[in-house]
Amino acid sequence: MDGTVLLTGAGGRVGEAVLQGLSEEYYWRLLFHNPPDEQPDHEYLIGDVDDMDDVREAMAGVDAVIHLAGDPRPDAPWESVIQHNIHGTHNMYEAAAEEDVGRFVFASSNHAVGSYETPDRTPDMYRPEDDFLLDGTELPRPGNHYGISKATGEIIGRYYHDEHDMAVCNIRIGNLTRDHPPIDYERGQAMWLSYPDCAHIHRCALEADYGFEIVYGISDNDRKYYSIERAKEALDYDPQDNSAEWNGDDHVADTDREWA
Amino acid sequence: MDGTVLLTGAGGRVGEAVLQGLSEEYYWRLLFHNPPDEQPDHEYLIGDVDDMDDVREAMAGVDAVIHLAGDPRPDAPWESVIQHNIHGTHNMYEAAAEEDVGRFVFASSNHAVGSYETPDRTPDMYRPEDDFLLDGTELPRPGNHYGISKATGEIIGRYYHDEHDMAVCNIRIGNLTRDHPPIDYERGQAMWLSYPDCAHIHRCALEADYGFEIVYGISDNDRKYYSIERAKEALDYDPQDNSAEWNGDDHVADTDREWA
Repeated sequence: MDGTVLLTGAGGRVGEAVLQGLSEEYYWRLLFHNPPDEQPDHEYLIGDVDDMDDVREAMAGVDAVIHLAGDPRPDAPWESVIQHNIHGTHNMYEAAAEEDVGRFVFASSNHAVGSYETPDRTPDMYRPEDDFLLDGTELPRPGNHYGISKATGEIIGRYYHDEHDMAVCNIRIGNLTRDHPPIDYERGQAMWLSYPDCAHIHRCALEADYGFEIVYGISDNDRKYYSIERAKEALDYDPQDNSAEWNGDDHVADTDREWA
Repeated sequence: MDGTVLLTGAGGRVGEAVLQGLSEEYYWRLLFHNPPDEQPDHEYLIGDVDDMDDVREAMAGVDAVIHLAGDPRPDAPWESVIQHNIHGTHNMYEAAAEEDVGRFVFASSNHAVGSYETPDRTPDMYRPEDDFLLDGTELPRPGNHYGISKATGEIIGRYYHDEHDMAVCNIRIGNLTRDHPPIDYERGQAMWLSYPDCAHIHRCALEADYGFEIVYGISDNDRKYYSIERAKEALDYDPQDNSAEWNGDDHVADTDREWA
């Protein structure tokens, strides 16, 4: 796509992965919550998504949004997530609708469905021989207040898609780590998302033709309980990494990889 | 069930229907937002569900909750529903968890799925010969901010069920009218809920044995696009009214009906 992409939460880890992979691919406008340590290579603003004035300023003239901002802590208290994640996301959608933005990519989370990991299913479901699979059509089952806020963000997106004909893609991001999968953590390996695959799925969400989607953002791990079929089908997602292929000596997440 | 049932939103229409049918059946504690016009026949308090002190006072010693309070306007603005409906409902669940309340009945709404009524489906879906049917397993598709708030309330309930082993029943209430179905309004007739059936489904939700449910609360209308099968199966719901049987001369909603 052409035009300006507004990226919120630009100082966070997902933002780092996206910019690392797609820095040259788009004209970026970055929204930081706190002033960045280093001068960014792109146009940027500092502001709060829960402040509608900041949001409107950031949204002016934008063609697409990748909305990552919010309290990222899985154990964040309700008072924080209702303000920053729920109200902030609503502000973003409302301003996007005012500005007739055609495409909105929302960083949802595995935590929106965390309570499917019941004691009788775990740890078996984290292993390749188990066939339990979530595919994005299931009802949310958050395991914490953060997860409630992400599931609510998906519903807000559904409303703005239906009412404003905005293309909306919710990416339930797995366990994003730089360079290599989580060590000695089966659950994290099953939902690993490499930095390159993270950038790639966001590019797919900016380029593909869709209406409203909920997809899982994980690498093509041997171990997985989130299906990536919908992301492949709707977004043409083609992940290159796999937590099972990392042998401890080198990085499967090849930083020289082509991004197209 | 025995014990005290806390009813919030006691001054609203759903509260009126519930109390009209079940006044003698339970020991009630009523929470009013505004002082009632007449002296209630039951223990009562006046307070706001978005005030945690009020909520904790109302919840003390309670055995079950019917939570109806919130801004009921389909066109309510976001600022109101995030505060009264989303935050207020979270307060109610949090206080119920603190108090080890075992059962929570939440007044959800048809507005949580209002955007399934797309131009290509309507008005056919409001008519008996159409077979479009929502059954409560579908993802929310709210058609307004009020609907977003109700869908979010369902997700909050899912979390408290999973985390605190609380029995949670979400009743997506249809078009509740006293005495007779809506006139010259096909959509309202298709989702009509009579006062007696409204009281009955709330009694079912207080008595049945379940974990987490999302059901539609409508009468057994010939015209319907919401399934009542799950309410029958999980709650033993047995509605007696049908908007198609009202002939304009008498009330199908027999106010002398037995409530058991």
